Amino acid sequence: MNNNFIKKAKSIKVVATDIDGVWTDSGMYYTASGEKMKCFSTYDGMGVQLLRELGIPTIILTSENSEIVLRRAEKLQIKNVYINEKEKLRRMIEVCRELDVSMNEVAYIGDDINDLSLLEKVGLSAMPPNSPARHLFSPDYLTEKSGGHGAFREFIDQIIEVKNTN
Amino acid sequence: MNNNFIKKAKSIKVVATDIDGVWTDSGMYYTASGEKMKCFSTYDGMGVQLLRELGIPTIILTSENSEIVLRRAEKLQIKNVYINEKEKLRRMIEVCRELDVSMNEVAYIGDDINDLSLLEKVGLSAMPPNSPARHLFSPDYLTEKSGGHGAFREFIDQIIEVKNTN
Amino acid sequence: MNNNFIKKAKSIKVVATDIDGVWTDSGMYYTASGEKMKCFSTYDGMGVQLLRELGIPTIILTSENSEIVLRRAEKLQIKNVYINEKEKLRRMIEVCRELDVSMNEVAYIGDDINDLSLLEKVGLSAMPPNSPARHLFSPDYLTEKSGGHGAFREFIDQIIEVKNTN
Amino acid sequence: MNNNFIKKAKSIKVVATDIDGVWTDSGMYYTASGEKMKCFSTYDGMGVQLLRELGIPTIILTSENSEIVLRRAEKLQIKNVYINEKEKLRRMIEVCRELDVSMNEVAYIGDDINDLSLLEKVGLSAMPPNSPARHLFSPDYLTEKSGGHGAFREFIDQIIEVKNTN
Repeated sequence: MNNNFIKKAKSIKVVATDIDGVWTDSGMYYTASGEKMKCFSTYDGMGVQLLRELGIPTIILTSENSEIVLRRAEKLQIKNVYINEKEKLRRMIEVCRELDVSMNEVAYIGDDINDLSLLEKVGLSAMPPNSPARHLFSPDYLTEKSGGHGAFREFIDQIIEVKNTN
Repeated sequence: MNNNFIKKAKSIKVVATDIDGVWTDSGMYYTASGEKMKCFSTYDGMGVQLLRELGIPTIILTSENSEIVLRRAEKLQIKNVYINEKEKLRRMIEVCRELDVSMNEVAYIGDDINDLSLLEKVGLSAMPPNSPARHLFSPDYLTEKSGGHGAFREFIDQIIEVKNTN
Repeated sequence: MNNNFIKKAKSIKVVATDIDGVWTDSGMYYTASGEKMKCFSTYDGMGVQLLRELGIPTIILTSENSEIVLRRAEKLQIKNVYINEKEKLRRMIEVCRELDVSMNEVAYIGDDINDLSLLEKVGLSAMPPNSPARHLFSPDYLTEKSGGHGAFREFIDQIIEVKNTN
Repeated sequence: MNNNFIKKAKSIKVVATDIDGVWTDSGMYYTASGEKMKCFSTYDGMGVQLLRELGIPTIILTSENSEIVLRRAEKLQIKNVYINEKEKLRRMIEVCRELDVSMNEVAYIGDDINDLSLLEKVGLSAMPPNSPARHLFSPDYLTEKSGGHGAFREFIDQIIEVKNTN
């Protein structure tokens, strides 16, 4: 963890996250009826809980119109869930207003080109190593764990460590 | 990216792709009723969309008679989908005639022995590293990402980079 | 295998295990109806059987309220299965009393922060390499195989080797 | 490929295979109703077809009582399928008699301790690298690809290469 990360992480009051490629390994399980399943990690679920204990809400922003994501969010008691969201930056600006936080107080982890405009604006940005947009953006933190295998949790653990040594 | 790739990619007007082992990691999920699921990557879906924005259609050629593939193609609004296709080269020649393009303007990514005759004839060829036919053919591009984990997208990103620096 | 492991393994009469991240790779397969599947390894199933042949029972302790785990336990004829268990240490103390063994005679493999208090107290502790709590605890044995890919079996094989060379 | 392999492979008239850990990565997908799915590889399916073209039948031997395996075998038109088979060596001896081949003309790939007695007796033996029994037996061929990701196909490709250069 470098000083840049520590300084930025101290200000974080909200954590937002993409789903496919971050909470999953980008896999979409299709049957003859269309998309049926996504595979999430219990590690990320624990990350949401650890954030909650620090009073930090988790916000989901995904461009997919997925019922599956709603079920995962319910299980983890996440209130701010935006599916079918084509303009993530615009949505995040709106959410910031509602929650009365600034963009500098938001951490975001995303992995593809439709995440870039938001990644550029938040206070603390992260990407998983499997991201196809890695050559287009340098995040504050590149996770070692890949999407669906604890990338989100790793990012959260780093933030929490900073918060706890404060 | 070497000069050979750049030169060949400049001419591409159509991208064709195999499914199993390219859009999947070769996995076929069976229940007691037979094949039930395939796992696709959202990265490849974004690749299809990026091609469309450049006016380049994606064509699916698979020897499997799979309803699952039809659902994925519908989601991605792909029109030219050939399932249960035992003669991929012959089919591609026919599609070229319909679309009024030459074989030199076709890019194809495939991974097994039934892809070889087509891989040898297209303008730009690719294989994922998990291919069991790697010792039988040297494609213009060997992807770093494996099938089902963004191999198709990586190939598409390379083609698009060439197109955009044109 | 070092002397510390050998000495501790000799005393083991009971093996307890976490599920998510140990018997699985932490993956939770969700459909539009919620969690639907977990993926277990046949290698771990064989581990349970090998322990039984030595008269060592396997005990499952998971904080998840999962029917799926009950089915896996039934298949493997495991009697002591505790799902929805928020206090694993307390439960294990109770089970020790029932089975008339001491905590020093218990081996436990777990991977997350809710496993730490139990891991610290048992006679022989293990973690899989994918554990997000690795920086918080040094187990007696860190498996090479990751969760869901034979981590439990590897731990069991080590214990059995010690038992058999006794 | 060493001389030992070449010499032994020349005699092979029948290929037998285990399923879990060889045709799969050892994963068993459970729902609240029990085991629901296995994930096979299309590469192994092509391997069965390539063997058939050389007049070599594929034989399935699994200790699991699995309908799922029957569906995969039907798809691949495999006639000799033995599920719920607790004594693989005894069964193989019987099959050899039926097919009028000797044990030296049988190739077998398996990965766990219940495969060892058969692995020791066949003319050509193989194991995938994920095998938990690797320290107990040295097969004629250790595949590079792991179970469920083309291990069987790789073994078959090696045998076919020997046959074709004969």
